[in-house]
Amino acid sequence: PPVSTPPTEKSPTSAPDRGPTRAELQFLIDGKTKPLGSLGRIEELAVQLALLQGTVAPTAERVRHLIVAADHGIAAQGVSAYPAEVTRLMVSTFLTGGAAASVFARTVGAEVTVVDAGCAGAPIEHPDLVLARLGPGTADSSLGPAMTAGQCDEALATGARLATAEPAEVVGLGEMGIGNTSSASLVSASVLGVPVTELVGRGTGVDDAGLARKRDVLDRAAARVPGRCGGAEALREFGGFEIAMLTGAMLGAARERRMVLVDGFVATAASVAALDIDPAIRPALVFAHRSAEAGHGRVLDALGARPLLDLGLRLGEGTGALLAVPLVRAAAAMLREMASMADLGLETP
Amino acid sequence: PPVSTPPTEKSPTSAPDRGPTRAELQFLIDGKTKPLGSLGRIEELAVQLALLQGTVAPTAERVRHLIVAADHGIAAQGVSAYPAEVTRLMVSTFLTGGAAASVFARTVGAEVTVVDAGCAGAPIEHPDLVLARLGPGTADSSLGPAMTAGQCDEALATGARLATAEPAEVVGLGEMGIGNTSSASLVSASVLGVPVTELVGRGTGVDDAGLARKRDVLDRAAARVPGRCGGAEALREFGGFEIAMLTGAMLGAARERRMVLVDGFVATAASVAALDIDPAIRPALVFAHRSAEAGHGRVLDALGARPLLDLGLRLGEGTGALLAVPLVRAAAAMLREMASMADLGLETP
Repeated sequence: PPVSTPPTEKSPTSAPDRGPTRAELQFLIDGKTKPLGSLGRIEELAVQLALLQGTVAPTAERVRHLIVAADHGIAAQGVSAYPAEVTRLMVSTFLTGGAAASVFARTVGAEVTVVDAGCAGAPIEHPDLVLARLGPGTADSSLGPAMTAGQCDEALATGARLATAEPAEVVGLGEMGIGNTSSASLVSASVLGVPVTELVGRGTGVDDAGLARKRDVLDRAAARVPGRCGGAEALREFGGFEIAMLTGAMLGAARERRMVLVDGFVATAASVAALDIDPAIRPALVFAHRSAEAGHGRVLDALGARPLLDLGLRLGEGTGALLAVPLVRAAAAMLREMASMADLGLETP
Repeated sequence: PPVSTPPTEKSPTSAPDRGPTRAELQFLIDGKTKPLGSLGRIEELAVQLALLQGTVAPTAERVRHLIVAADHGIAAQGVSAYPAEVTRLMVSTFLTGGAAASVFARTVGAEVTVVDAGCAGAPIEHPDLVLARLGPGTADSSLGPAMTAGQCDEALATGARLATAEPAEVVGLGEMGIGNTSSASLVSASVLGVPVTELVGRGTGVDDAGLARKRDVLDRAAARVPGRCGGAEALREFGGFEIAMLTGAMLGAARERRMVLVDGFVATAASVAALDIDPAIRPALVFAHRSAEAGHGRVLDALGARPLLDLGLRLGEGTGALLAVPLVRAAAAMLREMASMADLGLETP
């Protein structure tokens, strides 16, 4: 279990004392041994990381990957292709290292923290599992609020604490929860003011009949709370415990000036809530992957976000975030280690 | 200098004895603890690598990255933003580890081989440089053939030898040569039968006047050889020494069943020639990155190729190939290490 570290009051929008400015960083990059702008988004990533860390020599070696799992009352409405028991089974698979995210984390050298934020059934006992249970799953948000204000506040605080408990320059965020694309659609739609039916996809793979049922259930749920919601209100009404905890993780990590790798559709919903709660965290967020889940593109457009990767993933667990880690490390190394034109006796064009 | 190893006669289209079939591999992947198809292109990569290696437990740990440099006679026509001397300077930068490709290779643990295939001026002396010079740059292809048939044959053979000289599961291919986007445009256009003006971009960054001049020079060069050319003929007429050597490297690596990471616009031109010479190598090629160089998309479409990454790079050196290495490793690890539904006592849906 991580040490409790409250978020600090530093804002990621202001560089620390004597840190480089964006213009100074771009000047450094423009002086490297390459044509101007020829490293594209790697240059942008390098600038973003350097501004966060307040240094011309940023690093991204230590990556903490949180996988937060919870169950969703709305799953009882038949919105998923899988039964809720799968959430528990996948938590066990994260702990034994056999899940996709476990495998990807090993290939990139990321440390994984697995969190039970509220899976259905009895608590899983495992020495590596962080128990931060807010209940045996949320209430059914098609019938009433998914969680209480107290549960939501606790999820936000716990997420912030977990994302900053261990030293790390980069925090990857993943989730697991049968039914959570439904909760994610509702949270994003209510904060962005978009009809929820525009954000409904097949999740883990419902068939056409399942998709029609999912649309109907989400439409009814959204109708409970007309108009736009603030981030915290949307989490209370429609969130999963894991989504609220990821929102807190983004807020906490960003305030500690850590780079946050936002995964796919569900993690992006958490970022929608987080950005509504504190828009100043935007410089810390990197959108890692454009999910194959229908509706992700619409949410990304609303955020003005362009993910780094587009590999057709629609799995969650933070798999897309983990695959983006080597790009962040390459960007940091570029800024730290690439020679300059001046080293070769050449002028910058 | 690498040991001479002639390419074998094995074809990458036929699996080795008792290797898994595509259907067997997809069945294995479908049984992993994830929704069907939810790892998108990572699944495709895993199948491709496993078929090449003839095993359900493929590996991608050893990556050999070739950077082949040469000068281009056509550069004398003013088609580049940089003078030809920069080719030599960049070779030195590869050898001292300060170039973008050097930095990226370190971050992904790839071994780099730097090859002088024919830079202008006196040979560079450095213990780590492979001297495989075919001349002090090619002849000006706007006036006559870029190289002799003997030079082209030697480039192809040397490339095949270098790509297979050291143990590796994956070969990354990069290049450096002032003027080589011009040669690449001409090679691709002549093999594909596309007007060369459709494949002309700004390269390292020529201005509008430079772009107009480049179009005019390439149009005149292409007019020397009306109609479509075969791959070897196009290399002789228009190629750079480094492009021909990369073509040979693709043919050699593929015949040894190594996965080949094809970088951007120039490396793709080498693949256009290679696929024309031996279409059976296609299963070994992975297109790593969609270059920001105008014309790359057109060539990729003609090949039916969808690159893994799209990060706005337009640098060459194999930078895009190197950034794709972690994706190949993640794909291999997924197939080797992910748990199956059966392990959890679940049926595959």
